[in-house]
Amino acid sequence: MKRKVAVIGVGCTKFGEIWEKSLRDLAVEAGMKAIEDAAISGEEIKALYGGNMSAGMFIEQEHVGVLIADYSGLASLHIPAVRVEAACASGSVAFHLACLAVSSGMYDIVIAAGVEKVTDVDASRVEDMLASSVDREWEAIYGATLPALYAQIAMEHMKKYGTTEEQLARVAVKNHANAVHNEIAQYRREISEESVLRSPIVASPLHVLDCSTPADGAAAVVICDASMARKYTDTPVYVAASAQATDTIALHDRHDITTMLSTATAARKAFRTAGIEPSDVDVAEVHDIYTISEIVSIEDIGFFKKGEGGTATEEGATEIGGEIAVNPSGGLKACGNPPGATGIRQIVELVTQLRGEAGKRQVPDAEIGLAHNMGGTGGTAVVHILAV
Amino acid sequence: MKRKVAVIGVGCTKFGEIWEKSLRDLAVEAGMKAIEDAAISGEEIKALYGGNMSAGMFIEQEHVGVLIADYSGLASLHIPAVRVEAACASGSVAFHLACLAVSSGMYDIVIAAGVEKVTDVDASRVEDMLASSVDREWEAIYGATLPALYAQIAMEHMKKYGTTEEQLARVAVKNHANAVHNEIAQYRREISEESVLRSPIVASPLHVLDCSTPADGAAAVVICDASMARKYTDTPVYVAASAQATDTIALHDRHDITTMLSTATAARKAFRTAGIEPSDVDVAEVHDIYTISEIVSIEDIGFFKKGEGGTATEEGATEIGGEIAVNPSGGLKACGNPPGATGIRQIVELVTQLRGEAGKRQVPDAEIGLAHNMGGTGGTAVVHILAV
Repeated sequence: MKRKVAVIGVGCTKFGEIWEKSLRDLAVEAGMKAIEDAAISGEEIKALYGGNMSAGMFIEQEHVGVLIADYSGLASLHIPAVRVEAACASGSVAFHLACLAVSSGMYDIVIAAGVEKVTDVDASRVEDMLASSVDREWEAIYGATLPALYAQIAMEHMKKYGTTEEQLARVAVKNHANAVHNEIAQYRREISEESVLRSPIVASPLHVLDCSTPADGAAAVVICDASMARKYTDTPVYVAASAQATDTIALHDRHDITTMLSTATAARKAFRTAGIEPSDVDVAEVHDIYTISEIVSIEDIGFFKKGEGGTATEEGATEIGGEIAVNPSGGLKACGNPPGATGIRQIVELVTQLRGEAGKRQVPDAEIGLAHNMGGTGGTAVVHILAV
Repeated sequence: MKRKVAVIGVGCTKFGEIWEKSLRDLAVEAGMKAIEDAAISGEEIKALYGGNMSAGMFIEQEHVGVLIADYSGLASLHIPAVRVEAACASGSVAFHLACLAVSSGMYDIVIAAGVEKVTDVDASRVEDMLASSVDREWEAIYGATLPALYAQIAMEHMKKYGTTEEQLARVAVKNHANAVHNEIAQYRREISEESVLRSPIVASPLHVLDCSTPADGAAAVVICDASMARKYTDTPVYVAASAQATDTIALHDRHDITTMLSTATAARKAFRTAGIEPSDVDVAEVHDIYTISEIVSIEDIGFFKKGEGGTATEEGATEIGGEIAVNPSGGLKACGNPPGATGIRQIVELVTQLRGEAGKRQVPDAEIGLAHNMGGTGGTAVVHILAV
């Protein structure tokens, strides 16, 4: 990247079952919050990058980039509006492209947003729609939906490294505890390890409380050339690295399903770009679409050695105040997961943490943050490193 | 843009009802042709940008960028794969992002592809799915699908500028005549003005032969930093400009529906970047999803004054050998329109023309080409200028 990029404004709607708001309402609400937070005028925004997974299937609406730009009042400026899709990593890919647009010198100020509206369809169809993120012809069509595939990963991780159901449950317990203090989270209540283990099995060994839920929601961030950031804010947060990587879409095509090579590749690239080590990170938002995915990911990112994520979680190393605070927001698990918005929500959380504005969920002395977002079972992984 | 970009390889599948091939088959076929044409190895490709409109609705598959990368053998290299969507302009936006990725210096060689598989669903549902490119809540839901909206544009253009049904028909006649010599075109047969005017009305004044048809198909191009292009090919084609613009998604929110401000904005920007005038262009691929859209677009791009597109067409100014050859490929009208692939197919045609390899549809002495691609009713417009 040629120029440094700074985040100068963030905004996020409440996540959950937001019956009274449409996709466009949610996107505009988040966008306006981000623009207000950045204290800029709409005219200063030169392009929009929007993440959205499945508005076609969920609300029969494509051309979502333009729709958002239009309802945000940006269409009259005729700025480019791009919609990107990478399943649950759609938001992060939008942020990645937005960063490139600014760092390349093409634009000085752009907005990256993410949105999803999942509750407007029959709830029984949502899981199958989300399974469009894996290989429809060779996985989903045979019933291998996301929880079924992550259950296989969990089984293998338990067999290979001795990870336990209790350790998986601890991820959910921690993230719910954090979400109590996050006003946008869908589930703001503590849960016990026992309640996770007693909750119904979705796909063994994953219980229903090991699973995040699809949600409605939107998030947006305004970024600019770092050299102009202090004109807009006293608390700019800088993008130290932005890296995206790919793996096979189907799990069965991988050598080892307990490691996501997309995550490992993107993380390695991001750390190299930022010139830091995993141990330098103070706070991380990690893709915990299922409890097992947080454990696999904190290993693949390099926070812990492969196979030691479960034990580390059990010992409290990933709690706020622990070795590395993972998902102080509550993560996908307790915030809820609007696939298009999650990647941007992670950035919003990191910026809030690095500004020191996270209130009761504040990670002490947070100066370096990492966001990790995946699509499907890791077909896409995106890693961002932010720093003050 | 910091670095100049060159197209060094192009590939395209046959467009039409391709029953025997799936989305992934089509994408891989086009990609392999482009890679072979560029005479590079897959390992040299550092990122993939894929345009696709509605694989979610059409084949219940999202995460299309990764799917294509995977089946092209690129997932094992873990390169970033991005899927972008802008309705029928998805392919052009993918090309636009690919150009930025190279021009910014982020990558030296990338592939831009576009693909759509529309025939795997009940044909009666396709038109409604394509109407997801316009405003579902305020247009499509009331029956205002794409042909109905373009019919309104045509009506207004006829009223305001005296454009006739015969002039509209001439667009179809010309493009079908050109497609006879294009081996990838869906409709390789001449049609007469009379047959257009006698064909059934879809939405007055548009007859069925004024309309392009949704089709299966894929196209791909390999681009690189221009300074290295001659290492791979003796006939590099350079990207002189790449511009994208937006307008309201709904037609009723515009001041004048006979002008697409997205097209006008993108074209103005592209000409400024390239440092040329519309009259310098030798060959153009223009978004003729309906005959009226070619007429409106050749005016908005600046080839003809507003209101004179119909007369110019009638006088043969847009034929091969005319003032400006428009849609020598046959356009969307006769090639067929796979929404995700069309924008890339236009680039493939321009490169073929500028290389002088277009055979019987060759535009004499073509040195500068322009591609114009729209999403919906012009919510998105993308203009590329290519030159030898």
